[in-house]
Amino acid sequence: MIVWINGELMDERDVRIAPNDRGFLLGDGLFETLLARQGRIAFLDAHVVRLAAGGNILGIPLPASTRHLAVACGMLLEANGLTAASRTALRITLTRGPGPRGLLPPEKPVPTLMITASESPPPAASQSAILATPRRNALSPVSRLKALPYLDNLLAREEAHSRGADEALLLDTSGHLACASVANVFLWEGDRLVTPAEECGILPGVTRAAVIELAARLGIDVAEDMIAPQRLARADGAFLTNSLIGLMPLSRIEQREIPVHRLTGRLQAAYELLLDADEEESEA
Amino acid sequence: MIVWINGELMDERDVRIAPNDRGFLLGDGLFETLLARQGRIAFLDAHVVRLAAGGNILGIPLPASTRHLAVACGMLLEANGLTAASRTALRITLTRGPGPRGLLPPEKPVPTLMITASESPPPAASQSAILATPRRNALSPVSRLKALPYLDNLLAREEAHSRGADEALLLDTSGHLACASVANVFLWEGDRLVTPAEECGILPGVTRAAVIELAARLGIDVAEDMIAPQRLARADGAFLTNSLIGLMPLSRIEQREIPVHRLTGRLQAAYELLLDADEEESEA
Repeated sequence: MIVWINGELMDERDVRIAPNDRGFLLGDGLFETLLARQGRIAFLDAHVVRLAAGGNILGIPLPASTRHLAVACGMLLEANGLTAASRTALRITLTRGPGPRGLLPPEKPVPTLMITASESPPPAASQSAILATPRRNALSPVSRLKALPYLDNLLAREEAHSRGADEALLLDTSGHLACASVANVFLWEGDRLVTPAEECGILPGVTRAAVIELAARLGIDVAEDMIAPQRLARADGAFLTNSLIGLMPLSRIEQREIPVHRLTGRLQAAYELLLDADEEESEA
Repeated sequence: MIVWINGELMDERDVRIAPNDRGFLLGDGLFETLLARQGRIAFLDAHVVRLAAGGNILGIPLPASTRHLAVACGMLLEANGLTAASRTALRITLTRGPGPRGLLPPEKPVPTLMITASESPPPAASQSAILATPRRNALSPVSRLKALPYLDNLLAREEAHSRGADEALLLDTSGHLACASVANVFLWEGDRLVTPAEECGILPGVTRAAVIELAARLGIDVAEDMIAPQRLARADGAFLTNSLIGLMPLSRIEQREIPVHRLTGRLQAAYELLLDADEEESEA
């Protein structure tokens, strides 16, 4: 596998992350996961905006423009023979780079910027979920960043796996629904859509934002809300969102089977059109 | 600088952390910080027990015994010319090692085990602290592990720095006192000692445990408790603990000057004796 790192394409086996990289020692960094279809990257702008904004909050300058990253991703796909692949997962990782001992960051960080690409299987038609033990920290600014620390999510996902489910839903520390281990979550209440508000310690996903906008455009009432877990048991439908799965219906939460809401398909179709349009625009 | 990694001593510039090491990509790992004085390591047993216990919880096997790690640390100190140094900080880092894309860990992880050493300045006589914005997650098992993700602690420490203080105290998500960015915290209430209970999402520190035991031995009443922040404003003294600073009096919390409690010195002296005894025992 070929990796793009700090401006160079390199065989994975030759890439050297420094032993004092703060991403490695402290989780001091951010990442983005993007979908490329036939070499065309979906919503690159939105991902780069979020990455740069997170970098601003942490004080890690993003040493590349959107244009620069588009070229880098293109070269990487080409180098890995993935320009024609139907689905590729791209991951952009940005860390504060090497630093001295201790928590306080170096005054002039030399960030590590890395991009990897790997083929991504087509998503399943639907997923099942459990309610996981770890809670999402609603009172930390880090919860709203796509930061490297993913141990809570990992433990939640392992819990799902060990209980025979695909995904794990996490409540936040105040007891409201937050998100899944790698996705945002939406519920149908009648023909109304609700999704956890940012105050619930969620990462505001790029796909989540697109779905909120699409729903409004289609005349579907959508609210960002504090959602008590009891509302999961009454929901008339539910789906997950992220860049790789798009909109993924939840077919079961714990023991409860959930019907696929008739409007989920309409939103999925609209999202596909949006993906196509975004890719054509970035081609132009 | 020479680094010990997976059984080998190596110049830092030659060490290669793999770009798919899960410690780097997801914060999927643990660490320990230890103090060595003139080449003798304090409380190695307790640190290794905690590291192995954390590894058990995460499913990351520690590929070395205490004896093995003692030898490795000795070789590392020697290779860096630190056997006579008055204070050296040793850091043992254990990650799940390389893995494929996605959250779920490989079935048979090949962990990365790394030890670094660097001279550690003598601790100050006392520190000042502020109350930081990020809260410690009392409802995640990760909070009780010395896990790689340190972004909350880092943000808290930067907040302290920008407000002219040395350290940051964090409340937990239910509003009780938890810990400092890199230390546990104790308060004096009269001649009684209190420290946040493990339920407050604290890392149960090796020095914290030693202080609790010493206090009991000296006939000082010590309680692990849920501590409302109002009790900070009334405390008759306070100190921080970790492996590098030992017992560090807090001279100020926010605007309030705090006297050094007369019993803090007694505990500090007893802790120094314990350190000496532990080092002599590990020599024998």
